[in-house]
Amino acid sequence: MQEKLDILKAKLKTIHDVNYAAAVLGWDQQTYMPPGGAAARAEQLSTLSKISHELFTADEIGELLSDLAQAGFDYDSNEASLVRVAQRDYDQARKLPPQLVEEMSRTFSMGQQVWTKARAEKDFSQFQGVLTKIVDLNIQAAEAYGYEESIYDALLNQYEPGMKASEVQSVFATLKSALVPLVQAIAENKDAVDDLVLQQEFDEQTQWDFGLLPLQAIGFDMERGRQDKSAHPFTTSFSVNDVRITTRLHKEMIGSALFGTLHEGGHALYEQNSDQALEGTLLAGGTSLGVHESQSRLWENVVGRSKAFWQFYYPKLQDFFPAQLKSVSLDSFYKAINKSEPSYVRVEADEVTYNLHIFLRFELEQSLLNKSLRVADLPAAWNAKMEEYLGMTPPNDALGVLQDIHWSGGMMGYFPTYTLGNILSLQFYSKALQDIPDLPEQFSKGEFGALLGWFREHIHRHGRKFTANELIERVTGDAGIKADPYLKYIKQKYSDIYQL
Amino acid sequence: MQEKLDILKAKLKTIHDVNYAAAVLGWDQQTYMPPGGAAARAEQLSTLSKISHELFTADEIGELLSDLAQAGFDYDSNEASLVRVAQRDYDQARKLPPQLVEEMSRTFSMGQQVWTKARAEKDFSQFQGVLTKIVDLNIQAAEAYGYEESIYDALLNQYEPGMKASEVQSVFATLKSALVPLVQAIAENKDAVDDLVLQQEFDEQTQWDFGLLPLQAIGFDMERGRQDKSAHPFTTSFSVNDVRITTRLHKEMIGSALFGTLHEGGHALYEQNSDQALEGTLLAGGTSLGVHESQSRLWENVVGRSKAFWQFYYPKLQDFFPAQLKSVSLDSFYKAINKSEPSYVRVEADEVTYNLHIFLRFELEQSLLNKSLRVADLPAAWNAKMEEYLGMTPPNDALGVLQDIHWSGGMMGYFPTYTLGNILSLQFYSKALQDIPDLPEQFSKGEFGALLGWFREHIHRHGRKFTANELIERVTGDAGIKADPYLKYIKQKYSDIYQL
Repeated sequence: MQEKLDILKAKLKTIHDVNYAAAVLGWDQQTYMPPGGAAARAEQLSTLSKISHELFTADEIGELLSDLAQAGFDYDSNEASLVRVAQRDYDQARKLPPQLVEEMSRTFSMGQQVWTKARAEKDFSQFQGVLTKIVDLNIQAAEAYGYEESIYDALLNQYEPGMKASEVQSVFATLKSALVPLVQAIAENKDAVDDLVLQQEFDEQTQWDFGLLPLQAIGFDMERGRQDKSAHPFTTSFSVNDVRITTRLHKEMIGSALFGTLHEGGHALYEQNSDQALEGTLLAGGTSLGVHESQSRLWENVVGRSKAFWQFYYPKLQDFFPAQLKSVSLDSFYKAINKSEPSYVRVEADEVTYNLHIFLRFELEQSLLNKSLRVADLPAAWNAKMEEYLGMTPPNDALGVLQDIHWSGGMMGYFPTYTLGNILSLQFYSKALQDIPDLPEQFSKGEFGALLGWFREHIHRHGRKFTANELIERVTGDAGIKADPYLKYIKQKYSDIYQL
Repeated sequence: MQEKLDILKAKLKTIHDVNYAAAVLGWDQQTYMPPGGAAARAEQLSTLSKISHELFTADEIGELLSDLAQAGFDYDSNEASLVRVAQRDYDQARKLPPQLVEEMSRTFSMGQQVWTKARAEKDFSQFQGVLTKIVDLNIQAAEAYGYEESIYDALLNQYEPGMKASEVQSVFATLKSALVPLVQAIAENKDAVDDLVLQQEFDEQTQWDFGLLPLQAIGFDMERGRQDKSAHPFTTSFSVNDVRITTRLHKEMIGSALFGTLHEGGHALYEQNSDQALEGTLLAGGTSLGVHESQSRLWENVVGRSKAFWQFYYPKLQDFFPAQLKSVSLDSFYKAINKSEPSYVRVEADEVTYNLHIFLRFELEQSLLNKSLRVADLPAAWNAKMEEYLGMTPPNDALGVLQDIHWSGGMMGYFPTYTLGNILSLQFYSKALQDIPDLPEQFSKGEFGALLGWFREHIHRHGRKFTANELIERVTGDAGIKADPYLKYIKQKYSDIYQL
């Protein structure tokens, strides 16, 4: 068995190297690549994707996995986990014909280029053609994967293994019933908070320089990662020891970089803290996007938008921007960064209304996939739902249907994981707080090591060894995702801020 | 035959995509990669190299090439050229065992990381171990390639197909006999020139900003390429339409960035101007390193260090650096940037002494490869040759044996191509000047389009379709490399500057 395990590991290592190489090409594509490189890059990514897929779906891999499933490794061991997770990935990968994989890769890569231009020019019509193809390819993929209840399940399963659209609908319904009255209560008391302090110009380089302080303080290791700029912030890994994040800087929107950096930093901490024994294997990284998002939202919101965090960092931020901030109190600043009101752009949305943006996308994706909505009608449908959920219509496509990169990169069924992440961040954090009750006091001294250590121990180091549900049960004792801690947190925080 | 050609093209395209992907990883490795990424990156590059090698050396490729050699395509056609050049590459690649290719890739990649640190810490002993392995792998590769006269030929052939060490020795002897008296005459009249003007501090960002002006003026297309910073400047391509160059900036050495940017820009023009019909095939790019270097040295020296060039750019440079330059005349500046005197570092050397640095490396490489010199004794041998050729001993390894990246990346047999490039730059340029006699006048107006157009027409667009000797004959009518134009140029230029 040891020999078979070694053969499997060597084969998976080659595949992993190819996947990591593709990730480097993807990173460059979004950070530094000149426009002229787009066409060739799409071809290169398609070729790497095809090679990886062919190597991974070889019959021999399946045979090795079948044999090794009988090896009797301890469930928690790296060996058993490798075989178990590889088998799950293998079963998924075998379902897609190589032709489709290659076409998806090429189309999705080109889609991002088209989207970038369309977004810059605020013009959905440029993007409509390739998006139509992307939806069609996703439908083809979903049919190939297969599903029991809904076509959406097949795609959601790529990001949140085992989760069903009906479950998402049910959790989302619980959230809606609590959030809609909260949004209403806030609207009725909206004068309690203003964010005039944020409506100033903040030098971009100074924003960048400041952002590096909390990023490193929460534990992002600059020797094993780096930050660059891109149109849409993201995190990607080429190794446990080379994790890249990006941020974007806008003079008139300091919050974008401040919280974007913490958000991607949270993703990066999960990636950088996989056990080194998992390096170069498919067990490194995060187990599901919901759990991944729980880490980013934790550092962005639960920590990064807390009063305690800014008790430490606000005086420093004032030093970086004395002209803008020296006469503004911590309390005003804290309220400003937590101001809740309907807005156009998901990534700039506050914690309360954020989930409404997700409900909208989740519903539109379902309609596109079950063909009750045509891509040509998507901008109108988007705007209608914005009116329904947030009471406002985007003035242009860049602030509307073109704002997110996901669809352009082929990712459908992904959005719900953001709200699942919001919920999970509190499900985990409330447990961490039971174990380490003085966490907020630590934050107020600029100390984040205990919280990072807790997550490293309970979640990060395991990489993909355990599923989201296994992790939730091991860490919290809960049988699955539970909205209560999140709703308790959000109601308490906003009742306090808005004096409800 | 058309069907076979299509199959061959598709197979080569896949290989080419993998090679380009490896180039992206190599670029990132030297520009942005954090230190933690080094180990995984070496593995990734090794894997891509192995995949590419396996795909390219498949029997089926050989069979397709054999069949297509009989197709009767016109010699000058892209089809015939593709088959001819692929056959040459294939024969070479088949000679290396896959095991050796993989080991070379991994060792060379790691070698660069070790070298970077050793160079920063001025400590050859850190680099000795991996360099010993690199020399040994080069010897193994040379034996696998085979050779008639000298082991050196087998390695030189990778960079300058068909050239022999004995020919290099012969051309180098001609150069030596002319350059040694010139160096002596300059030394006797060294007071004619001083470069005090360059011994000032020049802000790095301003150097960068200025450098972009001539870079774009000579024709570097920023929509199809970009410039970044790295420890050692280089040019690399991921497509005809995505050509990357790097430069380095030192406050106290403005020449490093000024001429380094033009040097890499010259390489880049060759890469960017391959015929678009060659995009994505192995015919894109440069035909040999000597011809490639003829382009970089042309723009760096023949154009970039000419009086005419600075008649246009010096007033602009004065505007960028008024404090340093406003009281310095064009004539003084022109002489300063052409000052000739022995120095430690090849890439900072003037046009006259530069070739002495190459003679030294060529001789040391020969000694390493025929095992008459041990790597442990290399620093001493380096310093002894520096004393012999340039009359000076480097104060540390960073200014001596550790200064170049080449050996760390596994490249042996490469250095002679620099001097071959110097010679070729004048062999081509003297012909261009016959066709367009007012080139210097154009330069003095900041116009470089006619010269670029001439090179595009006669050399660039052909990519790798013709060998160096074929190109030389087609372009100049000469039967091969000829030192006369270069010697005439260098004697004239320096007699004028030093009033010899």
